[in-house]
Amino acid sequence: MSHVVLAYPGNERLADALSAHLGSEIAPLEFRHFPDGEIYLRVKSRVAGKVAIVACGLDRPNDKVVGLYLLASTLRDLGVKRILLAVPYLGYMRQDQSFHEGEGVSARYFSRFLSSFVDGMVTVDPHLHRIHDLGQIYTVPSQVVAAAPAMSAWIAGHVEAPVLIGPDSESEQWVSQVAAGAKCPFVVLEKQRRGDHEVEVSLPDIDKLQGKTPVLVDDIISTARTMIAATEHVVRGGLSRPLCVGVHAIFAGSAYEDLLGSGAAQVITCNTIPHPTNSIDVYPGLAEGVRALL
Amino acid sequence: MSHVVLAYPGNERLADALSAHLGSEIAPLEFRHFPDGEIYLRVKSRVAGKVAIVACGLDRPNDKVVGLYLLASTLRDLGVKRILLAVPYLGYMRQDQSFHEGEGVSARYFSRFLSSFVDGMVTVDPHLHRIHDLGQIYTVPSQVVAAAPAMSAWIAGHVEAPVLIGPDSESEQWVSQVAAGAKCPFVVLEKQRRGDHEVEVSLPDIDKLQGKTPVLVDDIISTARTMIAATEHVVRGGLSRPLCVGVHAIFAGSAYEDLLGSGAAQVITCNTIPHPTNSIDVYPGLAEGVRALL
Repeated sequence: MSHVVLAYPGNERLADALSAHLGSEIAPLEFRHFPDGEIYLRVKSRVAGKVAIVACGLDRPNDKVVGLYLLASTLRDLGVKRILLAVPYLGYMRQDQSFHEGEGVSARYFSRFLSSFVDGMVTVDPHLHRIHDLGQIYTVPSQVVAAAPAMSAWIAGHVEAPVLIGPDSESEQWVSQVAAGAKCPFVVLEKQRRGDHEVEVSLPDIDKLQGKTPVLVDDIISTARTMIAATEHVVRGGLSRPLCVGVHAIFAGSAYEDLLGSGAAQVITCNTIPHPTNSIDVYPGLAEGVRALL
Repeated sequence: MSHVVLAYPGNERLADALSAHLGSEIAPLEFRHFPDGEIYLRVKSRVAGKVAIVACGLDRPNDKVVGLYLLASTLRDLGVKRILLAVPYLGYMRQDQSFHEGEGVSARYFSRFLSSFVDGMVTVDPHLHRIHDLGQIYTVPSQVVAAAPAMSAWIAGHVEAPVLIGPDSESEQWVSQVAAGAKCPFVVLEKQRRGDHEVEVSLPDIDKLQGKTPVLVDDIISTARTMIAATEHVVRGGLSRPLCVGVHAIFAGSAYEDLLGSGAAQVITCNTIPHPTNSIDVYPGLAEGVRALL
């Protein structure tokens, strides 16, 4: 076997899926934090001469990216030929320019660090805004898996008369793709963000949605303030309780409970970040992305 | 002014001391974690063309080293000339060789990462064991501040008839220096470590210590298992309750409370990691180390 899969802790299901799709063995990993917060790790099978496929999502990325760097460095010393990263959620994509004097561009710095120790990577729907292509900031080859087809298929198969509601004008192109795949209409909210936690939304054409199942869609559900504001707006407008669908289930703090409490009928996400709401499987796409890099 | 001091959060006192000793201004830093765990930062004064002296201890290092990397990258983009790191505690110094097949050498990997984004550093008593000199793993110039003189002075000034007790044979050379500076005798324990948390000690010559104040000294107090085992051993041997003196106050979990509960009369540390026990000031040495690099 010329390639092996390693599961960074918390990514065991993705590693199992990659192993099954690619016919790779899993290389077991011993991994723990010392009492002082430092990471200990040990690769428990022979990897010399092989391609190492590392499954590691980078939500809440700080501790994880240090562990990933230590793992990659260890794999190099053990003689692996290449390191390919399957990173279903890629952190540090939001600060993609210096908005105020004295700010840096963490998206570039993070990409420079990651690019220094992996040889290629596959991710799902990175938050690309002012940076339009991962190749602008990542110097290693990358494959981007679109979650839209899997989301469209799930919505078409599970929801009666859906109408998709996108959170803001930036999302319009992406929401329109999900809607086209699900063969259903969509509308887009007008959104104003006030700080990290406060969001206001409005939906100009709320009357057009009567009799349909509102499906709120967003790429990242972090504080869920956008989803919560949209859910409350939809419910106040007299529509059915909405289904909330996201790609990346970050759910900071009590965000998931707050979203359920705001009137959402159900919350559904892709399995890019392990969470009880994961119902849409994007692992086959990740496996195909890895295969393209192999 | 050709140099400025920046305080990574939690290092404000060190930054103030460096500023006072070196006559540098403090460059204020805005720093917070987004709800999703990512770091936001902004340097709030002009630093272009200057040497930036960054105060940042690296205990519990994972989150901090990512923030430090983002800060250093931002400072470069803002046009600083050099970045000097005042790091009173340097993490990841213990895994300094591969002890078992499949392990890496995290001390080397961590030093490679730090060396990639700072131009020089000053630290206090790094845990040097099989690596005898920081220059073996750090490719940037470094200055090492010895805590021993400040510890000796504190012990000589505060303890009646002290006898120093070192935790193990590895510490003998270091303990003998502290004892010589304090003009007092010392003994060394025989120690056996069983896992991350379990330690057994014995003290062959316990009778020689009668009538003196036992002072347990160690470089790093992490789980405090060594100090606790030694304290219990000393108390069981009929000696006075010992004074416990350490350089680096990591105190993982409930280690501090456990140490007090084990019979320690008092716990005293150097101010390399902020903790209520910090009574021994090593900041002047750090400032002199920075001055040597400037």
